[in-house]
Amino acid sequence: MTKWVYSFGGGVSEGRADMKNLLGGKGANLAEMASLGLPVPPGLTITTEVCTYYYDNGQSYPPELTAQVEAALAQIEAAVGARFGDVANPLLVSVRSGARVSMPGMMDTVLNLGLNDETVEGLAKNSDNPRFAWDSYRRFIQMYSDVVLGVDHYHFEELIEMLKEDKGVDLDTELEADDWKQLAGEFKAKTEEVLGRPFPQDVKEQLWGAIGAVFGSWQIERAKVYRRLNNIPESWGTAVNVQAMVFGNMGDTSATGVAFTRNPSNGTREYYGEYLINAQGEDVVAGIRTPQYLTKAAREEAGAKAASMEESMPEVYKQLADVFDKLERHYRDMQDIEFTVQHGKLWMLQTRSGKRTAKAALKIAVDLVEEGLIDEKTAVLRVDPAALDQLLHPTLDPTAPRDHFTRGLPASPGAAAGIVVFDADEAETLAKDGKDVILCRVETSPEDIHGMHAARGILTARGGMTSHAAVVARGMGRPCVSGAGTLRIDTKAGVMTSLGREIKQGDFITIDGASGEVYVGAVKTLQPELHGDFAKLMVWADEYRKLRVRTNADTPNDTATAREFGAEGIGLCRTEHMFFEGERIVAVREMILAEDVAERKKALAKLLPMQRGDFVEIFKIMRGLPVTVRLLDPPLHEFLPREEDEFEDVAKAMGVSVDKLKRHAADLHEFNPMLGHRGCRLGITYPEIYEMQARAIFEAALEVVSSTGDTVVPEIMIPLVATEKELAMLRARVEKVAETVFAEKGEKVDYMVGTMIELPRAALRAGDIANSADFFSFGTNDLTQTTIGISRDDAGRFLDQYVKLDIFAVDPFVSIDQDGVGDLVKLGAERGRATKPGLKLGICGEHGGDPASVEFCHRVGLDYVSCSPFRVPIARLAAAQAALKG
Amino acid sequence: MTKWVYSFGGGVSEGRADMKNLLGGKGANLAEMASLGLPVPPGLTITTEVCTYYYDNGQSYPPELTAQVEAALAQIEAAVGARFGDVANPLLVSVRSGARVSMPGMMDTVLNLGLNDETVEGLAKNSDNPRFAWDSYRRFIQMYSDVVLGVDHYHFEELIEMLKEDKGVDLDTELEADDWKQLAGEFKAKTEEVLGRPFPQDVKEQLWGAIGAVFGSWQIERAKVYRRLNNIPESWGTAVNVQAMVFGNMGDTSATGVAFTRNPSNGTREYYGEYLINAQGEDVVAGIRTPQYLTKAAREEAGAKAASMEESMPEVYKQLADVFDKLERHYRDMQDIEFTVQHGKLWMLQTRSGKRTAKAALKIAVDLVEEGLIDEKTAVLRVDPAALDQLLHPTLDPTAPRDHFTRGLPASPGAAAGIVVFDADEAETLAKDGKDVILCRVETSPEDIHGMHAARGILTARGGMTSHAAVVARGMGRPCVSGAGTLRIDTKAGVMTSLGREIKQGDFITIDGASGEVYVGAVKTLQPELHGDFAKLMVWADEYRKLRVRTNADTPNDTATAREFGAEGIGLCRTEHMFFEGERIVAVREMILAEDVAERKKALAKLLPMQRGDFVEIFKIMRGLPVTVRLLDPPLHEFLPREEDEFEDVAKAMGVSVDKLKRHAADLHEFNPMLGHRGCRLGITYPEIYEMQARAIFEAALEVVSSTGDTVVPEIMIPLVATEKELAMLRARVEKVAETVFAEKGEKVDYMVGTMIELPRAALRAGDIANSADFFSFGTNDLTQTTIGISRDDAGRFLDQYVKLDIFAVDPFVSIDQDGVGDLVKLGAERGRATKPGLKLGICGEHGGDPASVEFCHRVGLDYVSCSPFRVPIARLAAAQAALKG
Repeated sequence: MTKWVYSFGGGVSEGRADMKNLLGGKGANLAEMASLGLPVPPGLTITTEVCTYYYDNGQSYPPELTAQVEAALAQIEAAVGARFGDVANPLLVSVRSGARVSMPGMMDTVLNLGLNDETVEGLAKNSDNPRFAWDSYRRFIQMYSDVVLGVDHYHFEELIEMLKEDKGVDLDTELEADDWKQLAGEFKAKTEEVLGRPFPQDVKEQLWGAIGAVFGSWQIERAKVYRRLNNIPESWGTAVNVQAMVFGNMGDTSATGVAFTRNPSNGTREYYGEYLINAQGEDVVAGIRTPQYLTKAAREEAGAKAASMEESMPEVYKQLADVFDKLERHYRDMQDIEFTVQHGKLWMLQTRSGKRTAKAALKIAVDLVEEGLIDEKTAVLRVDPAALDQLLHPTLDPTAPRDHFTRGLPASPGAAAGIVVFDADEAETLAKDGKDVILCRVETSPEDIHGMHAARGILTARGGMTSHAAVVARGMGRPCVSGAGTLRIDTKAGVMTSLGREIKQGDFITIDGASGEVYVGAVKTLQPELHGDFAKLMVWADEYRKLRVRTNADTPNDTATAREFGAEGIGLCRTEHMFFEGERIVAVREMILAEDVAERKKALAKLLPMQRGDFVEIFKIMRGLPVTVRLLDPPLHEFLPREEDEFEDVAKAMGVSVDKLKRHAADLHEFNPMLGHRGCRLGITYPEIYEMQARAIFEAALEVVSSTGDTVVPEIMIPLVATEKELAMLRARVEKVAETVFAEKGEKVDYMVGTMIELPRAALRAGDIANSADFFSFGTNDLTQTTIGISRDDAGRFLDQYVKLDIFAVDPFVSIDQDGVGDLVKLGAERGRATKPGLKLGICGEHGGDPASVEFCHRVGLDYVSCSPFRVPIARLAAAQAALKG
Repeated sequence: MTKWVYSFGGGVSEGRADMKNLLGGKGANLAEMASLGLPVPPGLTITTEVCTYYYDNGQSYPPELTAQVEAALAQIEAAVGARFGDVANPLLVSVRSGARVSMPGMMDTVLNLGLNDETVEGLAKNSDNPRFAWDSYRRFIQMYSDVVLGVDHYHFEELIEMLKEDKGVDLDTELEADDWKQLAGEFKAKTEEVLGRPFPQDVKEQLWGAIGAVFGSWQIERAKVYRRLNNIPESWGTAVNVQAMVFGNMGDTSATGVAFTRNPSNGTREYYGEYLINAQGEDVVAGIRTPQYLTKAAREEAGAKAASMEESMPEVYKQLADVFDKLERHYRDMQDIEFTVQHGKLWMLQTRSGKRTAKAALKIAVDLVEEGLIDEKTAVLRVDPAALDQLLHPTLDPTAPRDHFTRGLPASPGAAAGIVVFDADEAETLAKDGKDVILCRVETSPEDIHGMHAARGILTARGGMTSHAAVVARGMGRPCVSGAGTLRIDTKAGVMTSLGREIKQGDFITIDGASGEVYVGAVKTLQPELHGDFAKLMVWADEYRKLRVRTNADTPNDTATAREFGAEGIGLCRTEHMFFEGERIVAVREMILAEDVAERKKALAKLLPMQRGDFVEIFKIMRGLPVTVRLLDPPLHEFLPREEDEFEDVAKAMGVSVDKLKRHAADLHEFNPMLGHRGCRLGITYPEIYEMQARAIFEAALEVVSSTGDTVVPEIMIPLVATEKELAMLRARVEKVAETVFAEKGEKVDYMVGTMIELPRAALRAGDIANSADFFSFGTNDLTQTTIGISRDDAGRFLDQYVKLDIFAVDPFVSIDQDGVGDLVKLGAERGRATKPGLKLGICGEHGGDPASVEFCHRVGLDYVSCSPFRVPIARLAAAQAALKG
């Protein structure tokens, strides 16, 4: 016979913590605590299999269920010494749902079940507290009617309000036993009025009603939506827990509280919690009375008067502290605990792993290893990689005063204070003078990159989480608040306003990229702590991960940061970002607007030493590690002059008229630059550009090798390849440049030539393309744009709504769309490796720093991920977790 | 023992026409003719397997080859009655390559092989023609030295020129026997000087040298490139044909000629060809002498004097005519023939299927069926579908005088004459007045569509084969010449100029969209003949094809045309094209620029009756057949006002300021509209638009059903779906509109809801999407753009070069990229049908009218293709051929 019901407490414990699938999380943990000998009010758990049976069989129960529940109920009665429905000594129970994982939308709790017009009198007599008994009864009617019978709670609230008005009192606490008795009667009448049948007096009927309500709530809309969003299968079902009630509100020797076994905010090893004497569980949470501290130390530190539990109930506190230690040793993790003290007796109502801040997670994981409770692997799995982001950036000092100015989207984490500057050039100039600058723009464009780089932080009035400002700032690790709706910027006048306040160029502001808040003045910030626990955890993570972690870095500065964060090479160095720097842009524009090959080569000759210089610095910093350099990618018109004076500069440098230049620039206009003349298409049509870049790379590599003796491993990456032939042609050209440079210098370096797989066709034809590639790097930013047909620059208008409507579970530019884009990555990896088993595979683009995407990369067998410098630790940890889970 | 050599002629015939793989095309056909008892100079064929052996074995021959060649040579000697290398009676041979398919780049021919200092004397004596003998010898030395020995031919030409100068003559024909003898000596000396060894006198050495040259030429660069471009495997190899020489230049009873068994230009059943008395084969082609007609009838029709072969050589002519008939009956196709008459005896040198015009192909195929030579299936396979294009459009009368003005790209076929108009509105007005108009623009934009539609033809100064003008014109079936480089248009002044000539608005011009030529004045055009042979072939094609053929049509006009061309429904009706018509654009703009839902609904209410009216007309014309209506697709800003007066119109209609309107319009700007806020994304964010469109469709369908009693089958197509959820949401909305309209009218129609698969993600997730779709239509235009990452609007800058460099074998917007985009179509079809086996699958977009793409669609199992009206017959024929080949 199937066992549908498991007992716990009162010396029995049929379940265990590892039976969550059958008993749900709550039931399994109650059983576990009971089996540890902890004081758990006795109860029973109806298994999740009953839920499955219920829905598989037209919402009916297994025939044996009634008998099994009755038997288990009898055990509870025996343990408690009271009987369910007994007029003299009634057993009261709570009924709670309990799925494998906590699930909003499910029926939560019915308390005090077992009360009726007769048993309430017994309770009053036994507790010697009629007010408590009638209050409990009316609470039960209210809760049961609402949750089980579907009578809206406002009916009851109205009745309470009317009575208080009649009596001329303001607070519930001013109502007395008789008042609650009267209300209990009115509540019952109201329920009967709404439903057309009386409130159930039969306690068995009450019990089965509540059990049915739990199972029924498994299929209500909110629960279904939650499951779909969180990939929880319908088939899991929920369990039902029926447990003897205990009361913390039975006088001054009773109490109720919640506690963490360690400080959940910073991870310190200290008991941390609150309790209230003569109160019910919900009172602690509701905030009607101020809860008191658990420990003397905490009370003293806070300078509070009200006695701590350690002081007021030393015996029970000692018992509780023992329970804390026992539970921590048992569960090997910080626990979040609910308890009740009834007439001086401690009862444990719940234990579970406690939620914690990133800082606490890190400290607790490391401490638990040092305490010998967990091993390093477990510690690595305990810290949420995404949460590390908080730790890697400066934060606002929580004690510093703040003066709110405006609020936008938390576009790139970190806090920064500085003077307001509205222009990128000025930002650069002031930064060079040692000023901390916050660049404030309506929105940013590629022309602002040097200013963004020079600034401490970026604030924009327009643009979403995937706007230019947001993407570039995250890439650079600069704090950014984007799309501050109330902000109006008048660049010409040099002022910005929000909510009636004005800030001038040169005034101080502070932005918090983690919250999106912007403050007037300079708020004190705290620097991140990257040594100690953080460093320890990273060492452990590195031991277990299979994926290598590289960085996307375009400047020596970023390269150095990334190496500090543990990057094992550069996975993406975007040479075009170098083109925007300083005075180069004029030479770049000459190159683009050249009328013929000769003119273009002249302009390229000016750029060669600059590019070579960049590469020399980057190669030096990344010595011994691979550096993937992507040849020029963006459409040419991105570099074009826009303002009149820019046109004049270029016209002067080229010796042509501004008009002619403008016509030529207009010719370069593209309707869809994303899908236009860029990437290797430029390499094919203007061979001189890639030849110059290849020469700069090889010359730089030889220079670093000969000056430092270090190894330099350039990996030259051809972007936007759609066919093998493009890659084969350009590879041949790069090889020719290599031969020429090596012959000129009489020295060689090893190098690789590979491609980005960033077009669906490239993924599909990866089998051919692999013939001409030493490596693939999946450019999932562009691959997402083309696979889903969404321009990241334009997605703002509908992508938020798409995420809200759950068309996309997450923004596909943040976490890789595994079903669509991911399918192509998988296909590309398989087809590429089928041709060339040793093909090196990586991913670059922002997904490389997203934990879910990193896990995906591990699963499909890539060799490395590459992400922005500040996300390198996140990727390292995520990669380790992926390896440990896999 | 492997048979490496096959003999033919002289009563022997070891090969057959179907042995092309082994003997090559030429060898197989010579053997076939010989076995038919036709007079073929005897010869031998060294098989293609020798070529394979040669390259597999370090360029050496099979050991048995020499003996087999000698034996076959002996047979030739016996048949001819002369001996190879015999001084008194020398056998001369030609050596020719012969692969399975004719292949440029391969060594072609060495003639007169077997001549040396001694045999030339024998030839002189036997032919009684020393000039002929010495001329043949020097030709042989020249040809052999060039082709086999690699001595540049200019050496020899120089020597001839020097001799002619010495002798003071101008023409080769003025040189005499002794002159040629002298030159033969000088040629030999020159070859020895260049090579350092004497010209081979041993005829066997000559023979094996020539054979080796043929095999060697299989691997020269030009041949390799040709094979790669045409997908000819290396492994096929070439055969070598050694054949006894015959001479048409042995006096007045000798002759040489080429002929077709039917007229290759119009298909008429008449012998068609030319011959020359006392001449060699190359003389007919070279054009030094004017060839004479073959038949008396042809001579008389041309009013020529020189006797036809029928008249001058009646006996041989009769024999030749018999051969023609025999060959046609045997090969069951029109033949292209080479022959030589030597001393009154006819020799057949070649036969092969003759090239022909589309018109001739059609007539010949139909005639051959009627003559009982081929069946209908074969006839269907004989006509190149792409060539039909020529027949479906007006053409210029070939006899009409022409006055060249400019030349552009042949962007859309057909010829048209009309008056020049520079403005779309004016074109529409004048067309309404019954004028034939040619719309001339620098380039066209969506704003010009009504003018393009009203015009007879379109001429643009800028833009390629895939420019807006070209694409839209092809879709409408309007002739178009695009990108006429010399053309300068001054719209304001109302003139255009090219090469110094000026044409004013109102002047007549004629454009030929098949050639790209533009003429001054009205050139007479001929209308296409769509009945007779064309109609017959189409009926046969329809019997065999499996694919249905629908049309892309947005207007009643196009719909009617397409139905005439045999369209079996509409596969794509682009509702946005209707939005541009006449005064609607103002209401459309109001809709787009609406500030809220109420304003938008107000504008949509104006559009509803217009859309409904369009659908009523289209449904009526397509009664009984399915009509797929695609809901609004393009990005909103495509409809925005551009000119000041347009802004004013809309501002007035909406009662807002022009400034405000402009700001709003600027907000709608997108960086990559292709990947922007369009298609179903509009449907999701502005539900009112699709609701209006669905209502218009259902109301129109009900109106047509109730007024005509015909069946109407609307298939509503949701564009740009990337996820099932989008489709499910919008499908639910369409269904709700349907219920509402059906309830209002008290009537129902059957309808379907499906989607375009035009994003890679949609193809990848076709399995999910099929759950919410009744049909898929692969939108291969957009799918090509996203899969390859190429914007069609911007591709001009590099796509031509890509095709030239063979990165793409053909423009992927013209013929589907089967390896990339096609792979996704296949995947989408498979995954969709795996979910829903009965899922209706089609393709829309220009590929639907491309024969190779149609064959692909047949192969992957689609149900239908949809193409522009004028391509419907092409698709029908291509579909039939695909079915017959499959």
